[in-house]
Amino acid sequence: MTYCVGVLLEDGVIFASDSRTNAGVDNFATFCKMTVFERVGERVIVLLSSGNLAGTQAVINVLRQGCADGGAVDDVMGARTMFDAVRVVSDAMRDVEDRDAKYLQANKVGFNASFIVGGQIGAEPMRLFRIYAEGNFIEAGADTPFFQTGETKYGKPILDRVLTNRTSLSDATKCVLVSFDSTMRSNLSVGMPIDLICYHEGSLQVTSRRRLGVGDPSFAALSAQWGEGVRQVFRRLPDLD
Amino acid sequence: MTYCVGVLLEDGVIFASDSRTNAGVDNFATFCKMTVFERVGERVIVLLSSGNLAGTQAVINVLRQGCADGGAVDDVMGARTMFDAVRVVSDAMRDVEDRDAKYLQANKVGFNASFIVGGQIGAEPMRLFRIYAEGNFIEAGADTPFFQTGETKYGKPILDRVLTNRTSLSDATKCVLVSFDSTMRSNLSVGMPIDLICYHEGSLQVTSRRRLGVGDPSFAALSAQWGEGVRQVFRRLPDLD
Repeated sequence: MTYCVGVLLEDGVIFASDSRTNAGVDNFATFCKMTVFERVGERVIVLLSSGNLAGTQAVINVLRQGCADGGAVDDVMGARTMFDAVRVVSDAMRDVEDRDAKYLQANKVGFNASFIVGGQIGAEPMRLFRIYAEGNFIEAGADTPFFQTGETKYGKPILDRVLTNRTSLSDATKCVLVSFDSTMRSNLSVGMPIDLICYHEGSLQVTSRRRLGVGDPSFAALSAQWGEGVRQVFRRLPDLD
Repeated sequence: MTYCVGVLLEDGVIFASDSRTNAGVDNFATFCKMTVFERVGERVIVLLSSGNLAGTQAVINVLRQGCADGGAVDDVMGARTMFDAVRVVSDAMRDVEDRDAKYLQANKVGFNASFIVGGQIGAEPMRLFRIYAEGNFIEAGADTPFFQTGETKYGKPILDRVLTNRTSLSDATKCVLVSFDSTMRSNLSVGMPIDLICYHEGSLQVTSRRRLGVGDPSFAALSAQWGEGVRQVFRRLPDLD
């Protein structure tokens, strides 16, 4: 399983992904699920991957090789808008699926790679998308400012209660990390390290990126203080009649 | 879908169930999923039902008719211990499955009734069980003091953070209701009214039972204060470096 979250705020975009992959409970591994395409002062595009690792790695490689060939409008570093960039990702997904699907189907496996893609290109506003495994996609807005993929349920209530597109980057970051903490407590197939980017609106570069590993002291403090805070809130709630 | 929670505390047992049933998003109905077998001063046994409604209603009817025939050790009102009572429920489930299964299978439907059963009989300690659709069952203890059935994921993190078997009945009740609130916000197939029983250890009768309907003012106040409390906790958490 996987857990990835993207949040589109007025002040920026938050991207977070876990790093655990597994093929059964006896076969765990660690892979980064976050990919950044960046040209400082011009564009930042962040991809969060979920689904079959062979599929998502193939898509990322197709995208990287496309860029290495040189900044055309049909690659991620050349796309004029975020919409065009997401179409490029979608096309790469369909290319990989076209190549792999019949071999996967022979073993009754589906092509299930999917992505959260967001960022900013030039003067365009920041944008955030969620691409389904079929390659079609939706875009976040003020009503629904975040997307999750993977094991989404355990960590959703806290996002629902706290996040609006006006939440500060700092509060939203803490909220996303609490959402990860809740998810990792309940599903062993979601695990550290957590890759985290807080993109600041208009910066057109990644200034705040961090990897939170097992035992990270600030994550542990956040988790402990959150748990204590929540228990205090309960103690202060009025009793039912 | 359904959401039911049973919590075994040192001071008592909490039972809570939603009331929504559905066959598709265009076919909703309201049915109580909580059944009480009570002889004041002698026993309280509470069942929370999930799964196919025809199956759970049939099981409840088999149990009630058994009791009407008169208090034998092989019915719920005559069982000597909670373990024996749960075996009676399990037997009733298997009777109904034996009768229905082949007709359900013809339409590729499985018998999926399952129950949370708890309470107290005479001098025995309070006990809490979860019966699977197959009729086998597990019992809660100090390490895992609660069981959920139905749409369990959205509401689980808050139970994990707050509940131990030493939590007070009052705090645990509020925690269970917040768990319901989180679940109902995320899954439309879980809905009001919520049936709630707080059983007090040794009382051998149901003294605190309540049905919380749509717009219930104390539930609305709890939900609002919880949301505000949580946002305050975030504002007080230290920022990440």
